Amino acid sequence: MISYDLGALLSRVRNERPLVHNITNYVVMNFTANTLLAMGASPVMAHACNEVEEMVSFARALVINIGTLSDPWIEAMFLAGRKANKLGVPVILDPVGSGATSLRTDTFRRLSNAVRPAIVRGNASEILSIASTRVTTKGVDAIHDVEHASDTASKIAKQLECVVAITGPVDLITDGSRVIRCKNGDPMLSKITGTGCAATATIAAFAGVTRDPLEAASAGLAFFGLAGEIASRHSQSPGSFMIALLDAMYDITPDQFQKGSSLEEG
Amino acid sequence: MISYDLGALLSRVRNERPLVHNITNYVVMNFTANTLLAMGASPVMAHACNEVEEMVSFARALVINIGTLSDPWIEAMFLAGRKANKLGVPVILDPVGSGATSLRTDTFRRLSNAVRPAIVRGNASEILSIASTRVTTKGVDAIHDVEHASDTASKIAKQLECVVAITGPVDLITDGSRVIRCKNGDPMLSKITGTGCAATATIAAFAGVTRDPLEAASAGLAFFGLAGEIASRHSQSPGSFMIALLDAMYDITPDQFQKGSSLEEG
Amino acid sequence: MISYDLGALLSRVRNERPLVHNITNYVVMNFTANTLLAMGASPVMAHACNEVEEMVSFARALVINIGTLSDPWIEAMFLAGRKANKLGVPVILDPVGSGATSLRTDTFRRLSNAVRPAIVRGNASEILSIASTRVTTKGVDAIHDVEHASDTASKIAKQLECVVAITGPVDLITDGSRVIRCKNGDPMLSKITGTGCAATATIAAFAGVTRDPLEAASAGLAFFGLAGEIASRHSQSPGSFMIALLDAMYDITPDQFQKGSSLEEG
Repeated sequence: MISYDLGALLSRVRNERPLVHNITNYVVMNFTANTLLAMGASPVMAHACNEVEEMVSFARALVINIGTLSDPWIEAMFLAGRKANKLGVPVILDPVGSGATSLRTDTFRRLSNAVRPAIVRGNASEILSIASTRVTTKGVDAIHDVEHASDTASKIAKQLECVVAITGPVDLITDGSRVIRCKNGDPMLSKITGTGCAATATIAAFAGVTRDPLEAASAGLAFFGLAGEIASRHSQSPGSFMIALLDAMYDITPDQFQKGSSLEEG
Repeated sequence: MISYDLGALLSRVRNERPLVHNITNYVVMNFTANTLLAMGASPVMAHACNEVEEMVSFARALVINIGTLSDPWIEAMFLAGRKANKLGVPVILDPVGSGATSLRTDTFRRLSNAVRPAIVRGNASEILSIASTRVTTKGVDAIHDVEHASDTASKIAKQLECVVAITGPVDLITDGSRVIRCKNGDPMLSKITGTGCAATATIAAFAGVTRDPLEAASAGLAFFGLAGEIASRHSQSPGSFMIALLDAMYDITPDQFQKGSSLEEG
Repeated sequence: MISYDLGALLSRVRNERPLVHNITNYVVMNFTANTLLAMGASPVMAHACNEVEEMVSFARALVINIGTLSDPWIEAMFLAGRKANKLGVPVILDPVGSGATSLRTDTFRRLSNAVRPAIVRGNASEILSIASTRVTTKGVDAIHDVEHASDTASKIAKQLECVVAITGPVDLITDGSRVIRCKNGDPMLSKITGTGCAATATIAAFAGVTRDPLEAASAGLAFFGLAGEIASRHSQSPGSFMIALLDAMYDITPDQFQKGSSLEEG
């Protein structure tokens, strides 16, 4: 069992309402903002090179999500990320589609070199896409081998000196030495767009109230997965599931969160 | 009591379906378009410098919302705003986040100098952010002092020669001489993203059917607030509240609007 | 009666989960992605000139939607469209607002010259906007004359060597020789934003599993219209209708689709 006091952590989010600065993709901006509001955090979106450094200086966490890239946005991601590093604002990196196109893979690699993320969250393909040139691995074929993904994730975590979270049927979270598995979640979460991105945002909200990135990543994935479980009891169709998911993130009490989370170490 | 015939005004929106041109932020575009459709107006979004002047010439109102700025969009806001002024199309300005970053504060100030808005709507911090260099005031600290906000709003309204609407627990609308307070609204409106922006859009829809900006701003805030009250009776969770809010804006009859609005002068 | 095996076609979408690459407008990105996921396809959005050619090479269909244009996006549309043509990936073109501004009308015309679409879908005004200089017609006035629209649509289809789909109370689909009419649909579909764009996306999903564009366009419009009919039985208010629409697209079985579609030739 994990010793995190998740209930207390959720209460902190709701009491402190941490400002989360998002440089994210067009598809999920609205859902991400509503996710952050529903759980109790405070979202802001800003992407201009002549604004992001100032904006991130007010924030408690920065989300960099590469889901709909273009060169001006990439430049802003570097500026905001470096400024966040300088100020000690945790950077949560979501390498959407890395491994699919060279623009995304290159941007993920360049960003994780130039900016030190506190936490990287992606699916197995996205996370392992960074490994083929950075660590010795079998390449993206490895994604079907959970134990290999775990080993590679640990290597990436050590190399980037950050927490790596791979989401899937069971989520894997590691800082390179400890490994935590999260069993919260529901298959319906894959039937609507932006749930991976929203999970990243929930991690960022928790990273705004704890300095332990392993705890923040674990709390975010447990919280989002638990909300998915509750929503799936209300609906098995995606439109109403999406609405029930936002409702659940608002309705979950600290006590429910503490009892409903399913995190295991090792 | 206010003498506005709000029922007749809503009927005009539904009969005439005024085209509202929006240059607005990425986060709220979908919700804003659905808000305008639900109440009976006709939304269009266009932001390119080589398109906005032509588009605004077909419109009955122009919304300029600075929620996710970048330089090309700012340029388009100036072009569209000046063209709207030339054509007599009312400009409704929403200075999202003004006061938070210098890009937003400067853009709000420059826009309100170069373009004459018919109505500016924001929260107290956003509205008062224009005042620190333009009118003698105590600065943004004043936001906690409602009476001071009222005085400053009147000064800003006189200086910009427009209607200023400050939204909050009670909304304040002034043209510099008359002051109207709107008590419609519900705390749930702060639990979803884009409600301020959507309120601005409803104001624009009414501005498309009346030449009196004080009436348009009052009608928009009363309408949006009333829809929030109705939605909160359906749900106290944000996902389903958001859906009930869109439903309410479609379902409210002119008679319900007339009876349900809560506007007071002075 | 049409001999399409629509049930089998829907099963193919759900089994093969065709990747649909969308270069579309900001307003509808989220709803379009959720539409494609709900029906069983796999959406991706990418718009950068230095990414779209690589992305489209993985896709089974490409949607080009001109709803919120700017010059860099137009350039990406040309790049992606030409690459799709080279690779045999069907291009589905949605000329949102063509005829309203010269930027949109010109872009529609230039795109349909430089890129060979498999299918063009729009309302009557949008489709006929291409005709005024390309085929002998009475111009956009023709939109009120269904039979004339039908003749013009056939001419445009022949000239562009593609399928043309005009949506309205009854949809008209033609490859220049055959004409199919689709009676599925519901007036509530016009009360929410992005339904035309979502219909285009459903066409693209079917185009990803059949090489016959007349079949793909007919299937897409019948499917989307049927979902609208089912949703309107659940709600006559736009917020909850939108949610019921996504639910219906997920819930419709191949058998329901086969029996519920209303397509007629001639």
